[in-house]
Amino acid sequence: MRTLSTSDIEALAIGTAILGTGGGGNPYITKLRVLEELKHGRHVRLLGLDELEDDALVLSIGGIGAPAVSIEKLEEGTEGVRVLRALEEFLGAKIDALISAEIGGGNGLEPMVTAAALDLPVVDADGMGRAFPEMQMTTFSIYGHRSTPAAVCDEHGNVVLFRHAVSELWFERLARATVVSMGGTAIGAEAPMRGRYVKRAGVPGTVSQSIRLGHLVLEANQAHRSAIPEICAQEHGIHLIDAKIVDLKRHLRGGFSVGTLELEGIDAHAGSSARIDFQNEFLTFERAGRIEVCVPDLIVVLDVDSGHAITTDVLRYGQRVAVLALPCHPLLRTPEALAVVGPRAFGLEQAEFHPLPRPGERAS
Amino acid sequence: MRTLSTSDIEALAIGTAILGTGGGGNPYITKLRVLEELKHGRHVRLLGLDELEDDALVLSIGGIGAPAVSIEKLEEGTEGVRVLRALEEFLGAKIDALISAEIGGGNGLEPMVTAAALDLPVVDADGMGRAFPEMQMTTFSIYGHRSTPAAVCDEHGNVVLFRHAVSELWFERLARATVVSMGGTAIGAEAPMRGRYVKRAGVPGTVSQSIRLGHLVLEANQAHRSAIPEICAQEHGIHLIDAKIVDLKRHLRGGFSVGTLELEGIDAHAGSSARIDFQNEFLTFERAGRIEVCVPDLIVVLDVDSGHAITTDVLRYGQRVAVLALPCHPLLRTPEALAVVGPRAFGLEQAEFHPLPRPGERAS
Repeated sequence: MRTLSTSDIEALAIGTAILGTGGGGNPYITKLRVLEELKHGRHVRLLGLDELEDDALVLSIGGIGAPAVSIEKLEEGTEGVRVLRALEEFLGAKIDALISAEIGGGNGLEPMVTAAALDLPVVDADGMGRAFPEMQMTTFSIYGHRSTPAAVCDEHGNVVLFRHAVSELWFERLARATVVSMGGTAIGAEAPMRGRYVKRAGVPGTVSQSIRLGHLVLEANQAHRSAIPEICAQEHGIHLIDAKIVDLKRHLRGGFSVGTLELEGIDAHAGSSARIDFQNEFLTFERAGRIEVCVPDLIVVLDVDSGHAITTDVLRYGQRVAVLALPCHPLLRTPEALAVVGPRAFGLEQAEFHPLPRPGERAS
Repeated sequence: MRTLSTSDIEALAIGTAILGTGGGGNPYITKLRVLEELKHGRHVRLLGLDELEDDALVLSIGGIGAPAVSIEKLEEGTEGVRVLRALEEFLGAKIDALISAEIGGGNGLEPMVTAAALDLPVVDADGMGRAFPEMQMTTFSIYGHRSTPAAVCDEHGNVVLFRHAVSELWFERLARATVVSMGGTAIGAEAPMRGRYVKRAGVPGTVSQSIRLGHLVLEANQAHRSAIPEICAQEHGIHLIDAKIVDLKRHLRGGFSVGTLELEGIDAHAGSSARIDFQNEFLTFERAGRIEVCVPDLIVVLDVDSGHAITTDVLRYGQRVAVLALPCHPLLRTPEALAVVGPRAFGLEQAEFHPLPRPGERAS
C-alpha cells in the first residue's frame, strides 16, 4: 500500500492522458478535485493487486458521456459517493476498494476523488489499460463480469439504478440514454467485483504505470530534453513519425468525436506522410496506403516538444506532433477481447490487427 | 369488492377509449391479455375507494411510450409482475392493490393483467380521469406524491430503477429516455402510495365509470340507436358537433403525435365548421375563431354511428364523427392542477380554461 503524493497526482494526470490515446476525457478538472481532497488532509492510498483480498468488493467508478461536454458541465462533487452508497444500499454490502474501468484520461483519476472522501483504497489496475468509447469494452465485461446492477447519478441528485440488463450492450445502451437525458455526462458505478476476479481480469499496474509515465515527462521537461525516447523505452513503444498536422476533419456522430488527421513528416521524417482515423480515441495509423497500427494497440499523439498528450478534442491544424505506437496488454489480444475491442468492433472492415511486439515476444 | 366479468372487460375497453380523448393508447391488445387471464381461471377484483385500507400500499402500473409503437411492439407478458417485484424488493414492502395512473386508453386496463396474475385487487380510481401525455400530469403527482423510486422494464428483461429524481419533471425526462432506448414502449410502476393518499388525490370511480360507458355503447349498438345522447347524459357532457373530417395534419414531434383536425358540420350541424388541435390527446375545440373547450376538460371524438372512440392515431379524412365535451374532475381544476395540465402546460398561450359546468355547478 502506497499513499500518493501531490506530485504523484500531477504525474498521474499526464500519464493517463498519454494512455488515453486521444480520448478518455480531459484529466485536468478531475486532477484539481483530487488535489483539493489532499489539501483538506485526505489521502489516496494505492493498493497493489497482490495486496488485494480475494473476497474484497471492488467497485469501478467513472464518468460516462461526451468528453467535450465534461469540460463545461462540471460535477457537483459528491456524485461518486452517491453512486457508491446507492449500490451499497441496493446490494446490502460494503465496498472495500475502488478501481477505474478505464485508466485513460480523466477516468484514471475519477475513483481517487471518492476514495479520498471515503478513505477507501484504489486498486493499481483497470479494465482497459487505455481508453475506449463504450462500456462493454472493458476486460471486466469481456471476461464475464456483468455490469448490472449499476448506478448512475448527476449533479442535481437524480440517481438511476440499472437493476438488470440482459447483456453488456443493453447496459451500454440504457446507461447512455440516461446520461444523454442528464445533459451528456454523469458519474456511474458498475456492479462490484470480487478481488479474485480483478486479479484475473484486470489490466495490472496501470495506475503506477501512468504515474511513472507522468514523472518521466515532467523530469524530461525540467531537463529540457525530449520525453519521447524514454516513453518509447518504458512502454516498449515505436516512434512512428514526427509530423505536422496538415489537415483535420472532425465531427460529432452519435455522441462520439469522429474524424481524420492528415500528417506530413518533419525533421527526420520530412517527405513522408501519414493519416490517423479516430472515434474519441485514435483507431488506425496508416502510411503509404497500409494500416501499420490499429486498435486495440495504442496510438499516442504527443506534442513533439513537451511530450504531453493531445486529445482528439484539442487537435488543431499546424500542431507539431510525435506519434507513438504502444502495445496493448495481452488481455486485450485474445479472440474474445478482439471481438469487442478489435478493428471490426469499430466498423473498420479493411483493418487487420497485427499486434505490436511486446517484451519477450516476436513481431507477428 | 366486485369481480369483473368478461363483458365488463369488453365494456371497460370501450369506456377507457372514450375517456382517452384520442390518446392513452389503444386498449385492444391489453383487453385481449386481460381476457386471456380470465380464460385461465384468474380474476380481476375491483375495490371501491371506501373499501381501501388507509395503510394499504397501492401501486400504479402502466405503459409508457408512444401509442403508435405499442400496437406493433407487443409486451412479453410479465412486465407488470417484474416491475412490481423489483419495487417490492427494493422497498422491502408488499404491494396490496394496483391502480391506473391514467384511466384513458389501454392504461385503464394495464393493471388488470398483473392484478389477475398475482390475485391483487384493482382500485376503482385513477390519477387523471382521462389521458394525458406526460407522467407528471397525474393528480397523484400534482397533490404531492413523489413518483420515485419507480421501475421500468421491457420485454427482453431489462429492469431500470429510478431511485431518486429531484422533481416529477426530471422523472418524466429520465424515464422517457429509458423507454425510448428500450424501443419506444415499456411498462412502468411508480412509488407506491398509501390508501389514505389515494382516497384524497385519486379521481374516484373511474373504472366503474368506464365500464358503465362501455355497456351503454354496447347496448345502444345492439338496439340500433345512437349512444351519443346517453353518453352526454351520463357524463354531463355537451354534444358539440356532428361533422365530417375535411382536413387532417398529423406528424410526430418529440415522440408525440401532434396535429390539427378540420371539421365540417353534417346533418343538424350542416353549414358550420370547427377545428381540433391535438398532442396525443385532443387539446382544444375551436369554432368561429373561438376556443370553446380546452384541456383539462375532455374533448371526445366518436364514430357518429357506433359511438366508439376514434384515437388520434386512426383519424382519417372523410370520417363522420360526433364531438363531445365532458367536464373533467374538480381535482384537475385547482390552480395547482391547472399549472400542470391546463392550456399553458401544453404551450397553448392563446387558450383560457373556462370549465364546463358540472352537475350542481353553474357555467363560468
